[in-house]
Amino acid sequence: MTVDDVTTQTRTVTVEALQDQLSALEKRLENVEESLPEDKVAMVVFSGELDKVLAAFVIANGAAALGQEVKMFFTFWGLSVLKKNSSLAGKGLFQKMMSLMSPANSEGLPVSKMNYFGVGAKMLRQMMADRNVDSLEDMFALSREMGVTMIACEMSRDVMGINDDELVEGLERGGVAAFLSESLTSKTNLFI
Amino acid sequence: MTVDDVTTQTRTVTVEALQDQLSALEKRLENVEESLPEDKVAMVVFSGELDKVLAAFVIANGAAALGQEVKMFFTFWGLSVLKKNSSLAGKGLFQKMMSLMSPANSEGLPVSKMNYFGVGAKMLRQMMADRNVDSLEDMFALSREMGVTMIACEMSRDVMGINDDELVEGLERGGVAAFLSESLTSKTNLFI
Amino acid sequence: MTVDDVTTQTRTVTVEALQDQLSALEKRLENVEESLPEDKVAMVVFSGELDKVLAAFVIANGAAALGQEVKMFFTFWGLSVLKKNSSLAGKGLFQKMMSLMSPANSEGLPVSKMNYFGVGAKMLRQMMADRNVDSLEDMFALSREMGVTMIACEMSRDVMGINDDELVEGLERGGVAAFLSESLTSKTNLFI
Repeated sequence: MTVDDVTTQTRTVTVEALQDQLSALEKRLENVEESLPEDKVAMVVFSGELDKVLAAFVIANGAAALGQEVKMFFTFWGLSVLKKNSSLAGKGLFQKMMSLMSPANSEGLPVSKMNYFGVGAKMLRQMMADRNVDSLEDMFALSREMGVTMIACEMSRDVMGINDDELVEGLERGGVAAFLSESLTSKTNLFI
Repeated sequence: MTVDDVTTQTRTVTVEALQDQLSALEKRLENVEESLPEDKVAMVVFSGELDKVLAAFVIANGAAALGQEVKMFFTFWGLSVLKKNSSLAGKGLFQKMMSLMSPANSEGLPVSKMNYFGVGAKMLRQMMADRNVDSLEDMFALSREMGVTMIACEMSRDVMGINDDELVEGLERGGVAAFLSESLTSKTNLFI
Repeated sequence: MTVDDVTTQTRTVTVEALQDQLSALEKRLENVEESLPEDKVAMVVFSGELDKVLAAFVIANGAAALGQEVKMFFTFWGLSVLKKNSSLAGKGLFQKMMSLMSPANSEGLPVSKMNYFGVGAKMLRQMMADRNVDSLEDMFALSREMGVTMIACEMSRDVMGINDDELVEGLERGGVAAFLSESLTSKTNLFI
């Protein structure tokens, strides 16, 4: 064995060691890449008030326009946004009462302040029209066109007794697990 | 010096340079790994309304069931969820008034809409029972069993004069710094 | 060609291949670094209620004190926080009505519960003073001193007809795109 052989040997080992280190690094980087949240938005729309729902749709449509994937989880009062009409069929007493007291569709949403039995909501809608801002219904239609995913929370639907035929078509159904899986991978998470 | 020597030299340098690059890369990757948010949930429970608090616990318990670490920061009206009873001892006049007007414990939480002096909250609770959905108190117990960390905001406790013996046992205390440190490392941050 | 030449050749190829792998890895790491959210806070302040706005400023100032960059997007009722006075000049009828029914500045903000025509807000302010907690106005001033960026939502300003001279100085203007670009790069995103 010559000195040169030793050197060569050492160098070979180094290259192999480097390859091992590099592979280990690549594995770690893969884990990071998988875990890194993406340019997506996941939002819970809990509120059923016109002003808050408008904010939700402005954010959703803005993100969708920027090419981001957007998932909106409608729960509790937020389900009113997804209603196309109200029917009492198959509902229990309390469910009927809640249905009667809730807006039949998005056009009946109150504002969170100064509602005065709907006058505030009408005022806000008129003020938006005066400034050429899309109505909630236009924003909703735009959202769907841009491919925003809308998920109706199964648990609140069940508790409130909201039937399929009361909701608009093309919704996904899901529960908290669906939201959580999205929020894990979305950079923007909001509860509205 | 032969041509072969030169080649060897060059190659040796390359391997060393590679090792340096690799080490630099590893350091950068370590920084990224440390900075990467984890599969955790940090939420501020500001609201003291039954419907919103239910949403908070559904999310908390869902995440805990999926193996995620969950930290709930109860502040302001949200502290009512942590109360086991109400006592006026040691409170100033305004603190007494606020205490008398606040729910004595989670069972007294109103709903955010259609509360009608508690009728709405009772209705919602009955509707949940009818559909075999856990009550808020059951969800709370489950949260604690699953190891969800509950932090009572020190500043709001202090301002509202809420005593230790008014709150359930096993809470952590903390302030905004505790929340911020969690929100930095949690993929899901919510203000409810 | 000797056996030794072959070995050398093989080894040379390996080093070059390693360099390629390393460069590819570095490129991927760069992408991850660019996409990684930073220690920043982006919040939408939608609410115009004293208690919620206080929570927003406690979080904002806490984060700023920890050296984090903080951006607050004031929209809808949240714009009241930025008002220094109220003027009806150049407003439409509904805008005037809304202006008259909204707080003229932060000192007029109601609390979200138990407001009783402002008594609740006064009580809360007194309770904070009793415990040596900064007033909202002090927190606001501190925020600005610490370099928190405050953005007034252009769309809500336009809809509500809020003039420049009604707002405090030193605000940025922006829309949903500004918020979304911040929320993409901020670890903490909140809707308050």
